[in-house]
Amino acid sequence: MKLYDYFRSSASFRVRIGLNLKGIEVERATIHLTRDGGEQFSEAFTQLNHQQLVPVLTDGDVVLTQSLAILEYLDETQPEPPLLPVSPADRARVRGLAQIISCDTHPVNNLRILNYLKTKMDQPDDDRNAWYRHWVDLGLSTFENQLVENAATGKFCHGDLPGLADICLVPQIFNAKRLKCPLDGFPVLMKIFETCMEHPAFDAAQPSNQPDAE
Amino acid sequence: MKLYDYFRSSASFRVRIGLNLKGIEVERATIHLTRDGGEQFSEAFTQLNHQQLVPVLTDGDVVLTQSLAILEYLDETQPEPPLLPVSPADRARVRGLAQIISCDTHPVNNLRILNYLKTKMDQPDDDRNAWYRHWVDLGLSTFENQLVENAATGKFCHGDLPGLADICLVPQIFNAKRLKCPLDGFPVLMKIFETCMEHPAFDAAQPSNQPDAE
Repeated sequence: MKLYDYFRSSASFRVRIGLNLKGIEVERATIHLTRDGGEQFSEAFTQLNHQQLVPVLTDGDVVLTQSLAILEYLDETQPEPPLLPVSPADRARVRGLAQIISCDTHPVNNLRILNYLKTKMDQPDDDRNAWYRHWVDLGLSTFENQLVENAATGKFCHGDLPGLADICLVPQIFNAKRLKCPLDGFPVLMKIFETCMEHPAFDAAQPSNQPDAE
Repeated sequence: MKLYDYFRSSASFRVRIGLNLKGIEVERATIHLTRDGGEQFSEAFTQLNHQQLVPVLTDGDVVLTQSLAILEYLDETQPEPPLLPVSPADRARVRGLAQIISCDTHPVNNLRILNYLKTKMDQPDDDRNAWYRHWVDLGLSTFENQLVENAATGKFCHGDLPGLADICLVPQIFNAKRLKCPLDGFPVLMKIFETCMEHPAFDAAQPSNQPDAE
């Protein structure tokens, strides 16, 4: 397998955690998202993924895009240790938590959106940062509420083993810290975040531990 | 089961199609997203879903949120007809297509984002409509490319049976039409859209056929 990623991309970060949890070693290729106007726009990379987004994971001839689809693929092809619990209701809970981040929080704040606000809507840095913090706060508030309310929450988002929800949560917290979003209001998820970061699979996947880190 | 939805919500539309494909009848409750400042913000609904978003599907005591998590739950609990193909690579393709819409296109253009652009960033209607069309065009372009390139594309997005990718595509096209986004550049996906709309499960789920349609 070969992973095309960028150290700071949080969708790539998710896939790196999943690979580490499964103990899968992969070849790596850096797609630098800001150098030379963005290597994701190169002809070679566009040929691989017309979306011009990282991560991409190739498995032989199979080209996989979209971080959550990749993680489900890993879970289906190499089931141990599982990224999702067993019962459909529990799986739906974990996927729902993951999607609070992957659908409703992260896409609204990614690089291309912030670029659009700057270049096409003339929004100054302060207003773009306020935008960023607004959606992070909203996403993490609902995430925290769903953790607090549910007896299935354990050392990790679901029980005492790391899974898909933790995989989405941790990179979002890294982004939130980088943009100085207040996190005091989220004691439960921040405790889980700290537990995750003590886990070698999460630690090895963090941006500063990547070969292309700056 | 009970579905809390709104006729115009495209995430709700997805779940309605899935339920129809599976032949599952559900009780319905309308959560009107603009009346009285938005019924999704009411105390009763917030108690059910802290995210204050539709759809919510309840199955006995189980409260399900996030449209894609709900659809995977339906597929796991009532497998026939399947919403996903059999092989992990094919499942990843279909989930990846679904996520082009559900992660990268729809969340950037939903009601709360457009409201923020209007109220907090003073963006006039023209600029908000340009924003909307930009992300629709980008999302549908990549979707079209992934359909054109892949021999697995059939009468529907994957083969000749409707599934998760079609379920995400169709409501997005409805939104695109409502906002007058140009669709001439997407002949393959528009053909699939038309095939879908001839299918009773899709037709019965469309906004104008809902009890709360205006």
